[in-house]
Amino acid sequence: MSLTRIHNFSISLDGFATGEPQSLEAPFGHAGQRLHRWMMATRSWDAEAGSTGVDNAYAERHGPGIGAEIMGSHKFGPPGWHDDPDWKGWWGPNPPFHTPTFVLTHHARPSIEMEGGTTFHFIEATPAEALETAREAAGGQDVRIGGGPSMVRDFLAAGLVDHMHLVQVPIVLGRGVRLWDGLEGVEAAFDVEAVSSPSGVTHFTFTRKAS
Amino acid sequence: MSLTRIHNFSISLDGFATGEPQSLEAPFGHAGQRLHRWMMATRSWDAEAGSTGVDNAYAERHGPGIGAEIMGSHKFGPPGWHDDPDWKGWWGPNPPFHTPTFVLTHHARPSIEMEGGTTFHFIEATPAEALETAREAAGGQDVRIGGGPSMVRDFLAAGLVDHMHLVQVPIVLGRGVRLWDGLEGVEAAFDVEAVSSPSGVTHFTFTRKAS
Repeated sequence: MSLTRIHNFSISLDGFATGEPQSLEAPFGHAGQRLHRWMMATRSWDAEAGSTGVDNAYAERHGPGIGAEIMGSHKFGPPGWHDDPDWKGWWGPNPPFHTPTFVLTHHARPSIEMEGGTTFHFIEATPAEALETAREAAGGQDVRIGGGPSMVRDFLAAGLVDHMHLVQVPIVLGRGVRLWDGLEGVEAAFDVEAVSSPSGVTHFTFTRKAS
Repeated sequence: MSLTRIHNFSISLDGFATGEPQSLEAPFGHAGQRLHRWMMATRSWDAEAGSTGVDNAYAERHGPGIGAEIMGSHKFGPPGWHDDPDWKGWWGPNPPFHTPTFVLTHHARPSIEMEGGTTFHFIEATPAEALETAREAAGGQDVRIGGGPSMVRDFLAAGLVDHMHLVQVPIVLGRGVRLWDGLEGVEAAFDVEAVSSPSGVTHFTFTRKAS
């Protein structure tokens, strides 16, 4: 069975998954790299000196078993990226997705084949439609919901998420885009586990209850 | 040295410390008892059958070393309590404070001496003024900041908190009163530790850095 999964999705104590304003120089706004430093300190990111403990164990689950990703428009580029016909994402010639990757946008454009197995497809679709498309492309494997927070919220609200790994970083961002808005009671559909790491972050896993 | 401490202050995943609407029947609104069930399951609350693990270890720190409490108006009673001259708080004849307890209110009234060492005093004061008053009454011991969330926020914003114990419960409340609003970057003044409990909650301690 193909699952819908979220991995390494980092939020602040006050629930912001990105700061503001987002720009080419600051993809996460005033949050800078603070939400993701825990991940950059793991072996999965830093093959030489990264840690191999609990943070890395969670971080490494990002890739295996995934056959496609769906991402929101704000993850693919800074505001206005769709006005730049040469924009190919933040990640250089070999993006870290290695599968078909569906970008939700109102500005569809031709697909872009990158190195390493990533092909960006640009689609305008509801969460359910996008998931159906991605699932076909995933060849029986799982589909990753890549973020940002607005599209994660949409997929959660639509009941389309089977597994969600959140990482809560002990900072108060104060402003940006919140994950939890409009999701009152969302935890009822999930078994929730919290595990604190010596690094200071807390890992939450939301696993959809058997229905 | 007399410290200013917060204990057992429970918040949801999305940062709400109380639901809505607050009333005589529902002091925490639609949150009901969900934010505090972890505490009611400990030995400190249930002397017969309560747990004696990590949740209880934190919960028991509420009393020792405290010489006075300051609480907000919303903790003392439901909306409109000041129109009822007989209102003496939610807690019956022997409230769980056992010290002088200062209620911040715009409706001052004569002090009320209860059983067990609790005396309620009603004062209109800034956080700094209230702390000075409570500290005098505490006889060299620590002062507890009792909540609710609005007054905790005020004391945090004023830099008056030395130790804060938060308990994050894995539910999404969606509405109510948020703890974190207006506190961007507040963590910079503290060493922060997170510890997950087998009960599912996560304990955060904020300890003011030596200056």
